[in-house]
Amino acid sequence: MPENHNESRNPALRLYSMIVLIADIIGLLLKFTLEIIYSFMKLFVKAELKDLSGETVLITGAGHGIGRELALQYTELGCEVICLDIDSSNNKETVDMANGLKRGRAHGYICDVTNRDAVLAIAQKIKIEVGDVSVVVNNAGIMPSRPLLEQSHDEIRKTFDVNVMAHFWIFEAFLPQMIEKNRGHLVSISSVVGLIGTSNLVPYTASKYAVRGMMEALFEELRENKIPIKMTVVFPYMVDTGLCKKPKMRFSKAMPLLKPKAVAASIIEAHRQGLVEISIPRYIGYLNRFFRNYPVNCQIMLKDFFDSGVGTDQQ
Amino acid sequence: MPENHNESRNPALRLYSMIVLIADIIGLLLKFTLEIIYSFMKLFVKAELKDLSGETVLITGAGHGIGRELALQYTELGCEVICLDIDSSNNKETVDMANGLKRGRAHGYICDVTNRDAVLAIAQKIKIEVGDVSVVVNNAGIMPSRPLLEQSHDEIRKTFDVNVMAHFWIFEAFLPQMIEKNRGHLVSISSVVGLIGTSNLVPYTASKYAVRGMMEALFEELRENKIPIKMTVVFPYMVDTGLCKKPKMRFSKAMPLLKPKAVAASIIEAHRQGLVEISIPRYIGYLNRFFRNYPVNCQIMLKDFFDSGVGTDQQ
Repeated sequence: MPENHNESRNPALRLYSMIVLIADIIGLLLKFTLEIIYSFMKLFVKAELKDLSGETVLITGAGHGIGRELALQYTELGCEVICLDIDSSNNKETVDMANGLKRGRAHGYICDVTNRDAVLAIAQKIKIEVGDVSVVVNNAGIMPSRPLLEQSHDEIRKTFDVNVMAHFWIFEAFLPQMIEKNRGHLVSISSVVGLIGTSNLVPYTASKYAVRGMMEALFEELRENKIPIKMTVVFPYMVDTGLCKKPKMRFSKAMPLLKPKAVAASIIEAHRQGLVEISIPRYIGYLNRFFRNYPVNCQIMLKDFFDSGVGTDQQ
Repeated sequence: MPENHNESRNPALRLYSMIVLIADIIGLLLKFTLEIIYSFMKLFVKAELKDLSGETVLITGAGHGIGRELALQYTELGCEVICLDIDSSNNKETVDMANGLKRGRAHGYICDVTNRDAVLAIAQKIKIEVGDVSVVVNNAGIMPSRPLLEQSHDEIRKTFDVNVMAHFWIFEAFLPQMIEKNRGHLVSISSVVGLIGTSNLVPYTASKYAVRGMMEALFEELRENKIPIKMTVVFPYMVDTGLCKKPKMRFSKAMPLLKPKAVAASIIEAHRQGLVEISIPRYIGYLNRFFRNYPVNCQIMLKDFFDSGVGTDQQ
């Protein structure tokens, strides 16, 4: 503040800083325009997919749904895949399926990712037995769906422990290795509900928004510190994994429940393209961003028109 | 699904449902246009402010900063104000200041809002001693600012306990009274960081995004169930409350630190106007929504241009 004050009293310095500002604005407008043209052109060019063979990929919640499909598909791409799950028999099934594929290799570790000590301990074990992890996929999640006042405090806490806090413990355990090696990729699975607040899912919505904010802030932090670790946050629409027990949608043919296999393929494609964020399907993200500029009541009309959401999971 | 299938085989039913859909789309476009015209007209008309005299307003974190200013200003509007804080001497100071004003009345209660049992117990006490609460302001918050890996797990947990979980316990304690009486207003203080992920604030950003998601989902849930409880979520820019120890900004004159008094006034105005969400200053929300439609790299350029954020709070 004091320097600013002095500066404003010196006409030469004021002129100088004004010229700097104008130059900066012109530069910004130019780069902005070029970037828009470049992004538009990219729509018509098939993006190059990064070769993932030899990467060591850790996936949480690998025993089921999207996590299992991710494990299989990453293995098939020649990755060393570390499957983490709390359920040992489901996890073993995933590992066995993955090790039956032609390429890659899978390893199973049992871990409750909400338990920070357990996460740090398993990270040590993985480092010794498999080596440094180069890709982390924060996928494990739970989704109680009921009106807020019918969700117990234990359930609300658990939703945050699994869907949010576990991401912090995983980052604490694996990010330092990546920073040391100056390479790595963090993938986190949020949800379309992390873009659009949804009835019967108040704590879940909050947790998935938290994942979005966490990833956006960490992206900024790594970027400002010039740490070349990549990040991808994914917002999938309702997926047919059993998590979403009572899907509700008006246009069930145009917007069917997604299949875990297809969602996993889209996630890996986004990772390989180095995309910072992606909704699945993509148009939901575009539409959401576009209509956020309209009055709240217009957004409500659109919600009522699509009438898409989740019913209560209890009878 | 099976009904849909039958329907699609019956030409009369198919035609009927297509006509319904077309009518729906025409209706939507009409209402949409009217709403946009209405919203545009509202920009030129001074909105009516709701009279708050006689309302019972509970404020968390009332001992300091925005919370204290809110307590004073709500009291001045003739409200019965319940000041909640963990710090008894700060809270008493607020209550004494408020009770020196010409209108309204203030009551102080000491409570650690992260302790669910304590919140439920104090709610019982308040119900007996003051009566039903008609407005809840979730304001208490903490903001550790340092790179993610330098924040301890206790700090990360506490950030979520104060900034997010406490909101759930407050809702659990006070929402049922409001639903019973079919009236009430929930105000939650998020942050501009709940709109734009920010370096040195990864857990804080995540927690403030969570507040945004929680409020949006609860708004949807109450609306779908036709419960006429109003909601306002607020996204203030950096405020001069001591929370923000190392503000960083390029245009410190055009975007100075906000004063708690002015922020509290804006919050209460938004509440009285019945606004669902508001950023302070307002243009940040508009700009953020607008530029979210641009490629990620353009958003990064803008961030670099404004170079606004928070430095580390440790030496």
